Amino acid sequence: DPSGNGEECGEENILSGFKTTAVLKDSAREKTIFLHGKLDEQEAVVILQKTPITAASVAEMFACSKLKLEMRNDIYSTYHLQPPAHLNVLKATVVCPATEKHVKKYQVQESFLVEETGEDYLSITLPYIQEKSFSLQWVFNILEKKAEADRIVYEDPDPDVGFVLLPDFKWDQKQTHDLYLIAIVHQRDLKSIRELTAAHLPLLQNICTKGKEAILERYGLPASKLRVYFHYQPSYYHLHVHFTALASEAPGGGVERAHLLSDVVQNLRADGGFYRQRSLSFPLRADDGLLAKFQQAGRL
Amino acid sequence: DPSGNGEECGEENILSGFKTTAVLKDSAREKTIFLHGKLDEQEAVVILQKTPITAASVAEMFACSKLKLEMRNDIYSTYHLQPPAHLNVLKATVVCPATEKHVKKYQVQESFLVEETGEDYLSITLPYIQEKSFSLQWVFNILEKKAEADRIVYEDPDPDVGFVLLPDFKWDQKQTHDLYLIAIVHQRDLKSIRELTAAHLPLLQNICTKGKEAILERYGLPASKLRVYFHYQPSYYHLHVHFTALASEAPGGGVERAHLLSDVVQNLRADGGFYRQRSLSFPLRADDGLLAKFQQAGRL
Repeated sequence: DPSGNGEECGEENILSGFKTTAVLKDSAREKTIFLHGKLDEQEAVVILQKTPITAASVAEMFACSKLKLEMRNDIYSTYHLQPPAHLNVLKATVVCPATEKHVKKYQVQESFLVEETGEDYLSITLPYIQEKSFSLQWVFNILEKKAEADRIVYEDPDPDVGFVLLPDFKWDQKQTHDLYLIAIVHQRDLKSIRELTAAHLPLLQNICTKGKEAILERYGLPASKLRVYFHYQPSYYHLHVHFTALASEAPGGGVERAHLLSDVVQNLRADGGFYRQRSLSFPLRADDGLLAKFQQAGRL
Repeated sequence: DPSGNGEECGEENILSGFKTTAVLKDSAREKTIFLHGKLDEQEAVVILQKTPITAASVAEMFACSKLKLEMRNDIYSTYHLQPPAHLNVLKATVVCPATEKHVKKYQVQESFLVEETGEDYLSITLPYIQEKSFSLQWVFNILEKKAEADRIVYEDPDPDVGFVLLPDFKWDQKQTHDLYLIAIVHQRDLKSIRELTAAHLPLLQNICTKGKEAILERYGLPASKLRVYFHYQPSYYHLHVHFTALASEAPGGGVERAHLLSDVVQNLRADGGFYRQRSLSFPLRADDGLLAKFQQAGRL
């Protein structure tokens, strides 16, 4: 027992035989580590994650921990605090047997910022999207109520300015401080903000007004608590708008990928060709096929 | 010993007497909790923070932990993993005695999204900035080499298009994946992007080109790995540009506050009055004096 704390190796601890071959990702901020390795001769991915500190546990933690002073300066001091083991459990997620695809999914990927001109869109990005012809069947299923119909929070069925509003899968709907909904337009030929012109202002205004109203009514969150934006590049090429709680750091809410709906409306009002002509910057992962196309075109 | 693990309350554990009166902030994502309470009859703030999982510790953690199956589904399974206490230390930071100001600093604050028109800037924001006359002495000290001169990474001394580039205090300069530098302009009368016109394009181009060159030379990071942006509202009203590593989720990099330098340049090229006339959205904390001004003006 190397700890000297009276701990014993757990019985039936199948992870005790796990041999790490690579650290796929090490997220210091989130206290999570993603490991690739072997478990009983099989490929496996193991994710170790420290758990949040609950308010309910701190009294016992303070009462019964070992404390070691690290630094003291005026009114500030820092300590190492070693709580009893049962108050400090981690979450382990195991994928076994893991395929190459699982390993790649968790691997940290370098990203590169690409600056796409209007011409780059027509000569590089649009042909790539058309060539890949990503399936949008799941989007059409939602719009046609063939799937997820019970999840719809609001719908305006108008074919031109209408949309369906429903919770994003990343949101567990248990609290509004991380609210995340998606508005998917009924129009089927709009791939992304690149294709928006002044003709789409009624659609955008409608999503802005009715989306915010529906969220206020259903969740009690006013417009001043919302971040409403597009992604460019989007993760699928059917126009949709993200509604996230301002209080949460939404994934994909960074300035390098997100475009506020209110800015898009203003830009199109001032110049209907704004999104056809302007250079747009966005990050692409090293394994993204579109990055290869930009590299082949000598644009990176 | 409630844990049954043979732990004993640490001797000289001054935190054992801490009585929590309020949870100031509970950051589940970062596994950190901020508490306000009493320590020996004195006001105190205690921050408990789980520590990152190091690759070096996982072998011992796997070999000698208790494991409890939580869920199994096909190739996926999740467990509770209880490592020996010594492998699972927290960091505790104590501020004692703590003033009202300390408590407020750590308290989570509601934020509200404000949409500021060009007129709002002139009638609400600018008078507020002038009334408060925030001190910029520390900025002038840097520009005049009276402070932090040894931290300067690059300088263009030109009074019109020149700037000083130096690391932000949030960056420990130990690795480039969280690189964070600030370019502070030598011009003294530019408060923020609100005051930029086409006349400032040479300044912005110069910062963009020479800032990126200096970072490539010193840190080996090319422009495609950088996020270069302004904040609006900024945290101080002397024009400055943030250079952060694309790989890091920079605090304040969200679309609701950040404006890419490349977009600012394009916008000013197309319309020199862009930043004087457009509505700009930004979040304000509930305790921000500027929010009160917008509320008094009936703009929220």
